[in-house]
Amino acid sequence: MAARLSARTDYESLLDKYDTWLFDCDGVLWQGDRLVDGVPEVLSLLRARKKSVMFVTNNATKSRKNYKKKFDSLGLQAHVDEIFGSAFASAVYISSVMQLPKDKKVYVIGMTGMEEELRDEGISFIGGTDPADNTLESFTLANFKPDPDVAAVLCGLDTSVNYTKLSKAFYYLTRHPGCAFLVSNEDSTYPTAEGLLPGAGAISAPLRYALGRDPISIGKPAGTMLDCIKAKHNFDPARTIMVGDRLNTDIEFGKAGGLATLLVLTGITQESEITGPNASRTVPDYVTNSIGDLRVVAA
Amino acid sequence: MAARLSARTDYESLLDKYDTWLFDCDGVLWQGDRLVDGVPEVLSLLRARKKSVMFVTNNATKSRKNYKKKFDSLGLQAHVDEIFGSAFASAVYISSVMQLPKDKKVYVIGMTGMEEELRDEGISFIGGTDPADNTLESFTLANFKPDPDVAAVLCGLDTSVNYTKLSKAFYYLTRHPGCAFLVSNEDSTYPTAEGLLPGAGAISAPLRYALGRDPISIGKPAGTMLDCIKAKHNFDPARTIMVGDRLNTDIEFGKAGGLATLLVLTGITQESEITGPNASRTVPDYVTNSIGDLRVVAA
Repeated sequence: MAARLSARTDYESLLDKYDTWLFDCDGVLWQGDRLVDGVPEVLSLLRARKKSVMFVTNNATKSRKNYKKKFDSLGLQAHVDEIFGSAFASAVYISSVMQLPKDKKVYVIGMTGMEEELRDEGISFIGGTDPADNTLESFTLANFKPDPDVAAVLCGLDTSVNYTKLSKAFYYLTRHPGCAFLVSNEDSTYPTAEGLLPGAGAISAPLRYALGRDPISIGKPAGTMLDCIKAKHNFDPARTIMVGDRLNTDIEFGKAGGLATLLVLTGITQESEITGPNASRTVPDYVTNSIGDLRVVAA
Repeated sequence: MAARLSARTDYESLLDKYDTWLFDCDGVLWQGDRLVDGVPEVLSLLRARKKSVMFVTNNATKSRKNYKKKFDSLGLQAHVDEIFGSAFASAVYISSVMQLPKDKKVYVIGMTGMEEELRDEGISFIGGTDPADNTLESFTLANFKPDPDVAAVLCGLDTSVNYTKLSKAFYYLTRHPGCAFLVSNEDSTYPTAEGLLPGAGAISAPLRYALGRDPISIGKPAGTMLDCIKAKHNFDPARTIMVGDRLNTDIEFGKAGGLATLLVLTGITQESEITGPNASRTVPDYVTNSIGDLRVVAA
């Protein structure tokens, strides 16, 4: 059962135990464009105590640089090197793990953030925000000139998804032997200030369904994201804690990586999902209402 | 094991056994815009022998009237009353089985054929081909004025599918208590003259994934389509045969309805899928290369 934190000594002990703090962002640090109460003070407290702080987000619509701007706009201090997004992790996976040859290309269903990270890793791609693919005109294979160099499809949240993009991706995945099927993340929903909308997992669902085949997923809870962080930063998993609002991404990610886990209730997960007879089988080590609760230590 | 038909006596015996012949269309009577060899002669033969002939298609992009035009253009005789499409069956299901109150509406992800069938059944709907929903502009809940009367979402193949339609459908399905989730059919792929593209099941997959909930499916293999045919025509299931090219829709549909089944190899299914150690568990009663093979009887 998860330990419910509430007393000042609970939070003091947590700070003593963990040197590296990984944070999910949406639903933990902010909700849409609204900062969660106390977040600036808690991040300052962690930095003052010389903790390593990292931000681990499945949001693939933003590059790390865009994400940094989001931190800036909310008045939060963050370095680009502390930010790990699933678009960045996807690009690192394609270049370092898959080792996609330089003459091959990725067909992208995704937005500018994903394109920026691919470009920074020197990966050639087509699709994405190309106006030719951002159309509701009817698509026929008769008029389609496939690019023979496409060797992977990468799909993330794309709010301009359409039948042309899905058909082209389906074409490459079924007609190009060995074409890799990658998704930045599989979140079923996407939190906005006014409520949930379909998430990145919903955008790739048509391909998964039409192919009858599961993609390689890069973001949380997959270990690929943690491998990507480990490649850039040294840390001891036994003294590292993952803070998140989603059981099936953040908490599973932390547990699979051998990290401690802290669930906050400012996002997707409600307390009823972790207590009682119908509780999830994913049990965090700790639960607190809000990351802002740690302020009590600074007081 | 399926009986492999090849001799003239095989086909004669088939004609003796069955009075009602249900045909899938794409991959059986035609491939895209190309008629399968011998189809006009076989349909004439069946009609000359006083057989009941019906056309049962999962294609929900066309109304029965549009479908009739397709028959006309290929020089095939057919009556609108002989044609059962999943758009028509969906409309009948909504009005007769669900008995949607007249002051309630359906939110449609689908094309003109689906709208035409809903209109003919007197069902109010929004979405579909409405230009306001056929856009790649970004969608936000802040600017969305939901229609309080929406009590069902109906999703079929829609080649103008986009994030606005998916988000609105997701909104109704999650925020309107009891909102019904219906799909015209769940075909994973859609056959075109130049090859397969993502099908109706792929279009509804984002909603299924984001909701974590399966829809009520109307088309083959669901029994709803057969109920719809039974409501219009009297026939004896024991003397009825379903002819199709897909094991997981046509043949399963026939078997579930207690009909005999004939698989043809002019469409999706290849012979290797019904023989050998990796054969499908769905076994048709009969197999023949093409429905045109029945011509031998008329010769």
